[in-house]
Amino acid sequence: MDVGSTAFILAASMAVALMIPGLALFYGGMVGARSVLNMIMMVFGSVAVVGVLWTLFGFSAVFGDSYGGLGLLGDLTEHAGLGAMVAGDPEATLPPALVAIFQALFAVITTALIAGAVADRIRFGPWLLFTGLWATFVYFPVAHWVFAFDAADGSVIGGWIANKLAAVDFAGGTAVHMNAGVAALALVLVVGKRTGWPSQARPNALPFVALGAGMLWFGWFGFNGGSALAAGNSASIVMLTTFNATCAAILAWLLVEKLRDGHATTLGGMSGAIAGLVAITPACGAVSPLGALAIGAIAGAVCPLAVALKYRFGYDDSLDVVGVHLAGGLIGTVLIGLFGVADAPSGQAGLFYGGGFGLLGKQTVAALAVLVYSFAVTWVIAFALQKTIGLRLSTEKEAEGVDLVEHAEVAYDLEGKANTPESTPAPALAPVS
Amino acid sequence: MDVGSTAFILAASMAVALMIPGLALFYGGMVGARSVLNMIMMVFGSVAVVGVLWTLFGFSAVFGDSYGGLGLLGDLTEHAGLGAMVAGDPEATLPPALVAIFQALFAVITTALIAGAVADRIRFGPWLLFTGLWATFVYFPVAHWVFAFDAADGSVIGGWIANKLAAVDFAGGTAVHMNAGVAALALVLVVGKRTGWPSQARPNALPFVALGAGMLWFGWFGFNGGSALAAGNSASIVMLTTFNATCAAILAWLLVEKLRDGHATTLGGMSGAIAGLVAITPACGAVSPLGALAIGAIAGAVCPLAVALKYRFGYDDSLDVVGVHLAGGLIGTVLIGLFGVADAPSGQAGLFYGGGFGLLGKQTVAALAVLVYSFAVTWVIAFALQKTIGLRLSTEKEAEGVDLVEHAEVAYDLEGKANTPESTPAPALAPVS
Amino acid sequence: MDVGSTAFILAASMAVALMIPGLALFYGGMVGARSVLNMIMMVFGSVAVVGVLWTLFGFSAVFGDSYGGLGLLGDLTEHAGLGAMVAGDPEATLPPALVAIFQALFAVITTALIAGAVADRIRFGPWLLFTGLWATFVYFPVAHWVFAFDAADGSVIGGWIANKLAAVDFAGGTAVHMNAGVAALALVLVVGKRTGWPSQARPNALPFVALGAGMLWFGWFGFNGGSALAAGNSASIVMLTTFNATCAAILAWLLVEKLRDGHATTLGGMSGAIAGLVAITPACGAVSPLGALAIGAIAGAVCPLAVALKYRFGYDDSLDVVGVHLAGGLIGTVLIGLFGVADAPSGQAGLFYGGGFGLLGKQTVAALAVLVYSFAVTWVIAFALQKTIGLRLSTEKEAEGVDLVEHAEVAYDLEGKANTPESTPAPALAPVS
Repeated sequence: MDVGSTAFILAASMAVALMIPGLALFYGGMVGARSVLNMIMMVFGSVAVVGVLWTLFGFSAVFGDSYGGLGLLGDLTEHAGLGAMVAGDPEATLPPALVAIFQALFAVITTALIAGAVADRIRFGPWLLFTGLWATFVYFPVAHWVFAFDAADGSVIGGWIANKLAAVDFAGGTAVHMNAGVAALALVLVVGKRTGWPSQARPNALPFVALGAGMLWFGWFGFNGGSALAAGNSASIVMLTTFNATCAAILAWLLVEKLRDGHATTLGGMSGAIAGLVAITPACGAVSPLGALAIGAIAGAVCPLAVALKYRFGYDDSLDVVGVHLAGGLIGTVLIGLFGVADAPSGQAGLFYGGGFGLLGKQTVAALAVLVYSFAVTWVIAFALQKTIGLRLSTEKEAEGVDLVEHAEVAYDLEGKANTPESTPAPALAPVS
Repeated sequence: MDVGSTAFILAASMAVALMIPGLALFYGGMVGARSVLNMIMMVFGSVAVVGVLWTLFGFSAVFGDSYGGLGLLGDLTEHAGLGAMVAGDPEATLPPALVAIFQALFAVITTALIAGAVADRIRFGPWLLFTGLWATFVYFPVAHWVFAFDAADGSVIGGWIANKLAAVDFAGGTAVHMNAGVAALALVLVVGKRTGWPSQARPNALPFVALGAGMLWFGWFGFNGGSALAAGNSASIVMLTTFNATCAAILAWLLVEKLRDGHATTLGGMSGAIAGLVAITPACGAVSPLGALAIGAIAGAVCPLAVALKYRFGYDDSLDVVGVHLAGGLIGTVLIGLFGVADAPSGQAGLFYGGGFGLLGKQTVAALAVLVYSFAVTWVIAFALQKTIGLRLSTEKEAEGVDLVEHAEVAYDLEGKANTPESTPAPALAPVS
Repeated sequence: MDVGSTAFILAASMAVALMIPGLALFYGGMVGARSVLNMIMMVFGSVAVVGVLWTLFGFSAVFGDSYGGLGLLGDLTEHAGLGAMVAGDPEATLPPALVAIFQALFAVITTALIAGAVADRIRFGPWLLFTGLWATFVYFPVAHWVFAFDAADGSVIGGWIANKLAAVDFAGGTAVHMNAGVAALALVLVVGKRTGWPSQARPNALPFVALGAGMLWFGWFGFNGGSALAAGNSASIVMLTTFNATCAAILAWLLVEKLRDGHATTLGGMSGAIAGLVAITPACGAVSPLGALAIGAIAGAVCPLAVALKYRFGYDDSLDVVGVHLAGGLIGTVLIGLFGVADAPSGQAGLFYGGGFGLLGKQTVAALAVLVYSFAVTWVIAFALQKTIGLRLSTEKEAEGVDLVEHAEVAYDLEGKANTPESTPAPALAPVS
């Protein structure tokens, strides 16, 4: 066992775990004040559901031996319950349980990303059901395609994108960001726009958006760096490129806003940070620091334009999951085909560095496969739920505010009433009257 | 020295340190808007007091050679000041200073947990004094019982629960959570209910509760994982079980609320997360991933019922320290006796896995010992302070709000007045007029 | 390569990255509600600018071979673009890219610290330009002086303070805190006071200040601990002294406030934490745990007095960057000359431990050099910008509030309007009308 690398992946797993509240606050700060708790609960709730499924059969579906050697889905029962991991594996470089917890966090974060697209208008129970179905039928298979590498001794066959196609996706441009982004698009097409859209409540607390973005940035170092699966030069380069791309993307998004709208906003700066992080995710181990600056700048400049497409085409992607994660993930995945350098950890040269069009083609195939599969299956799941139990809140309940109707809570009470018998009579845990 | 494990415990210590603001915000968001700063300061203030005492004599009391070999209290002067640690110990697996800082954070977090029970009604100076006395007379001895293992060469005798009884408490179900929980009960019985209770101000900012819970979850990975004291399979299993229990507990608490009250709340989801984390703390190295799901689900279902006991029996455990930490800690400590598996790091089989009733008995003895000792000594400390310098705010001051009367501050001013001579005339550091 | 130490510095770098949102919230919570977003953006924006410059030429300026062997500035082109780091260096203990990302975070945090001094009154674009110029002409040279050690084989000549003078600055008392603190003083002397000062808006959200302080504390463990550049006894001692000083400083500041003003405030407690952290930064590897308690207590007691100097001398150091970072950094840097112990990692005894006046003299020289250089060059940069493009907002715009005029945003909208066509008609990304 590699003790030092085990130490790093343990630390990286912890860091990724902070993305859970980070995402909850990033999204939660952006919605109107009547929806912030529901947004937070959509994130935490999906984490809980997918976290349980991961142990039951999700890890198996992703890292089990591929059914028929096809590279489409892992053996659902091979590691079911993860009980065999308790004893460890003395021959493994990293403890199997460590791979399981690190990758568990990828599954829960990816699913939670979708929540931002359907702010203010979804019933909470059906949302939890959606996330369980989505993880099962979309995330687990796609993660198998992208993250399950064949065992060196041929004993386990992994996914087709990782092995047969050999496209480069260091930390999840396809399996995580494009996957969540295109699923968000399918879901909003099924559930429809919020009443009154595009006129909507203003963000309730932009400082939370900045806090969440900063926490996500922190966690992303673990997400990308940990994907090196070892403490060494690869993880170090990944940390550097992840930092570079984010800085460049912040500046690029602010510049686009300044030129287009006259002001560089906080929402723009934070969206830029996330766009840069998304775009560098697949590329963080494939490019040089200057290449990372370029990818970040491109993502930071293009994503604000991609975000604006929702107004043109009329889909209510509430918090820009499509505009940032789908567009940013696609940008990063494809640009590897241009900026990849041979001496980077991923080891494949792109078009600008003498690699020809080959890598660009593989990246495009991987991107298209994930886009088509995820969109189609997500649409079917969402449509089935909408037609049966119903995903969407009624218009009346939406107008009351999803926090109150779904959770019987209000996010803030800052008036600071004195503790007297005249103040609010409800016990702390009772529903708000 | 094990460099890789040192790296992990360094990282784990950092993670636990984030539990300080995590706890401050988790508690701070739950109280009314007139008490949020005091709650935050009760947490930070107790950390500061206990942190200083730790270096002066606390580490010695916990890890010093047991007086008379009885396993009751360590030699208070053996490591006083911690100066000998500067030079290090070339033969130790982990640097002594690393054990000191990691365990320092256990001491300060445990003490700070108590604060949530006495929201809105305690004088700040006496609270600081209480925490110093409580750490000295309760935490340090109990931590010696549970966390001080005998030296392999017999040169240092540790605590009776860890060695003579050999009960299983991987990361502090007894010494941390039941200890803080039952101390909270003793303290609220002395200081009494808030005026008007159970009618109280609503939580000022539930997003802070979610943020704090998420930060605590992150830090708990370091708390539990770091308790393995090495980067390896044990820490990895612990991370996985810690994650599993939390996910299951969130879902269980939400389900209880939905069935009982009609709504699944944010406060419930976050309380569920903490309940799961508390319950898995002693058990994280003792059970399988499925066992962790079971323990989490049980804690998540039982703790909301335990919380409701305060309304039946009429004690004002303001933020449910008793209902979550005492009940959750007890659940986790005892359930090891049922769910323990022999190939887990703790290596003891429970009743369900062929271990008979022996482990269950040891767990029960450990739990009862901590409950009785901590309750009695805490009650004496609190009673003595209340009768001498006074812990409780006067009714008039309580009605004014503890932030204003104790700290001369208000938590929020979101009106955003312009910076003109007409705006608030007080310099930033001067008391609010 | 040292895998374990690489794991730790990777984790430490992640931790330091959380100081970015930590600082943004610490500062952001302290300003009035019309300026919180601008404060957050000054932090994130400066990080983005300096982060890009670091890769382009900043790392080279700090760690490149010193021009003429003078120890004043590194070769700007030696590592420009950092492309050579991708392949790694098999003979290095730590991957070069890891040193680059760890130190990148020092550069961006140091620059961002300055923002707190000029709250509410600076144009955003010129601020970004200022930070780029300041990093280039002040931080990069000074960091070269202090952080660039000569290569063991003589192949690279580093900075004069680190090598020729051999003053002790473990993690940046001079290069980081005094540097930022005195630059803040120069900048506020150029841009002037806010209208109506010292009467100003109250802090908009003190819970953010506590949250930010807690996040900074967490990150500071990585900042100081990681400066050991290895996972071992040094980093462990540093974690312990960093913790000790902070606890003592919190208590000292609160005591000064209680005695002077009658109340111990949240703002004081959090300022105390930062003062302790600042003061221990240069000394964390040079003193014993008891020495750390002493340095923390002194910084916590002196800094509140230093803060009050702004009212006496009439400079508007809005959030006390001078009073905390300049004073605290000076205290820590000089007190090493008294409290240094020979068996600590820095290995130099101070006056109280038999080392005579030699170390005290070296510390004083290092402090004075940084003070004079940073003040002078910062003043020139600020003056040149003010006289050309203009740094300062107009009085009218300042009265409107910098969030609105510079970013077209307001921080909070907590009223929670229903999502109906009657609610705010602006699309989420459009400027506030």
